[in-house]
Amino acid sequence: MFKVHAEVKLSHTDAAGLLFFAEHFKFAHSAYETFMKSIDCSLGRIIRDSDFLLPIVHAEADYKGGLCLGDEFDIFLKSEVGDSSFVLSYSFKDSDGNVSAEIKTVHVSVNKETKKKIPLSEKLRKGLLTIA
Amino acid sequence: MFKVHAEVKLSHTDAAGLLFFAEHFKFAHSAYETFMKSIDCSLGRIIRDSDFLLPIVHAEADYKGGLCLGDEFDIFLKSEVGDSSFVLSYSFKDSDGNVSAEIKTVHVSVNKETKKKIPLSEKLRKGLLTIA
Amino acid sequence: MFKVHAEVKLSHTDAAGLLFFAEHFKFAHSAYETFMKSIDCSLGRIIRDSDFLLPIVHAEADYKGGLCLGDEFDIFLKSEVGDSSFVLSYSFKDSDGNVSAEIKTVHVSVNKETKKKIPLSEKLRKGLLTIA
Amino acid sequence: MFKVHAEVKLSHTDAAGLLFFAEHFKFAHSAYETFMKSIDCSLGRIIRDSDFLLPIVHAEADYKGGLCLGDEFDIFLKSEVGDSSFVLSYSFKDSDGNVSAEIKTVHVSVNKETKKKIPLSEKLRKGLLTIA
Repeated sequence: MFKVHAEVKLSHTDAAGLLFFAEHFKFAHSAYETFMKSIDCSLGRIIRDSDFLLPIVHAEADYKGGLCLGDEFDIFLKSEVGDSSFVLSYSFKDSDGNVSAEIKTVHVSVNKETKKKIPLSEKLRKGLLTIA
Repeated sequence: MFKVHAEVKLSHTDAAGLLFFAEHFKFAHSAYETFMKSIDCSLGRIIRDSDFLLPIVHAEADYKGGLCLGDEFDIFLKSEVGDSSFVLSYSFKDSDGNVSAEIKTVHVSVNKETKKKIPLSEKLRKGLLTIA
Repeated sequence: MFKVHAEVKLSHTDAAGLLFFAEHFKFAHSAYETFMKSIDCSLGRIIRDSDFLLPIVHAEADYKGGLCLGDEFDIFLKSEVGDSSFVLSYSFKDSDGNVSAEIKTVHVSVNKETKKKIPLSEKLRKGLLTIA
Repeated sequence: MFKVHAEVKLSHTDAAGLLFFAEHFKFAHSAYETFMKSIDCSLGRIIRDSDFLLPIVHAEADYKGGLCLGDEFDIFLKSEVGDSSFVLSYSFKDSDGNVSAEIKTVHVSVNKETKKKIPLSEKLRKGLLTIA
């Protein structure tokens, strides 16, 4: 489990007064990036220097309660690790511990040139397993 | 079927050079808003003046191919209509007719005060059925 | 003068019910991209294939009235053209013809490798002069 | 002076590989919101409960250097306080201490109903003066 703290800012809200549904995916991805940096697999380095990319092939969200401007929340991150892919689950919990959203993203490891599936790098695989 | 034309602008792209995954949901929602206006159920009016709201309780996306800066595409919108909820499916097709993403959003009709499920308004129901 | 039509969608609004101030810059940039495509200088091609870039070195906005969810507006685009830079002015007018915002962006032509100022390409210069 | 630490995430970048110019304004506003919370004048409370609003009437940015995916930076916030308005200046400094952007936002205190200028609330005025 990996935890990221976050807060709803004005730019994330909409005219209905709530965190806009698509912004949840941005928060999830930001938590993913923070996690990747923590296991020394930063996305910046992967995009610039590696021979693979990790495109998202599927994303989904279940919304269970609205977050409002100024609300603080935690994102809890867990992984399921495959050979050439992994799934990340993100649980958004408000300050009372209630789940406001559950998000999933599915990532595939592909060769940067051929775009063909390739096995996860060993370092990434080990890092992901720490939150399995 | 309802069709909206769109284009990938710089603000939608990321450092990997592609339409950022979460931006697909914004495009889908924008197409939904255009559709709702076309059936005289604009979201602005619903949020300001109606006694119901239509929160999204689930959203998902399958990504099949990347869209790049400047790419034009069409979003094809279809509905499945329930008693107090509806599902919208959005198919993103690039200018060669290839599907680059499939998105779904599930909306529930709730009373603005009580937040309890209520039947879809008759006007909305009829409008949604035109793209079922 | 170049004109782009636009509409305030839910993702552009904030909890105060208005078009979020930073979103104006995205709309302005989107209008700039549409204009650039119209003069056959699309940003996608510049970023991928040219030997220059056109970074924004200054941007500013004066806000004169709020735009709400669902409001349609026009963006009127004008240029001032220098040797190695240009200024774009964007006037946002609501459907009553009232100016809701005035935006400016200043762009400099730089060599992609050295990042040094270089003269505007002749094609770009001619295109920009059509809206001077 | 008030300092906020931030990091460039993938959603903030564009196909040119840099922090998109309009995203600087979102980071600035987010820093403003963090500051307002620190002086017990959170925007959420102002928008929901107060009799005034603080619309931005002017915003500007000078860009001096690009921030890339994964770059960490600090935003330094300073105020100039008037009777019914205030100016916030935000200096973005990268991890080497180089200024990458300078931003300004001008806020006016207006009555929520009449939209007429009114003096800054005493609490807000005092809080703003702590970073003058």
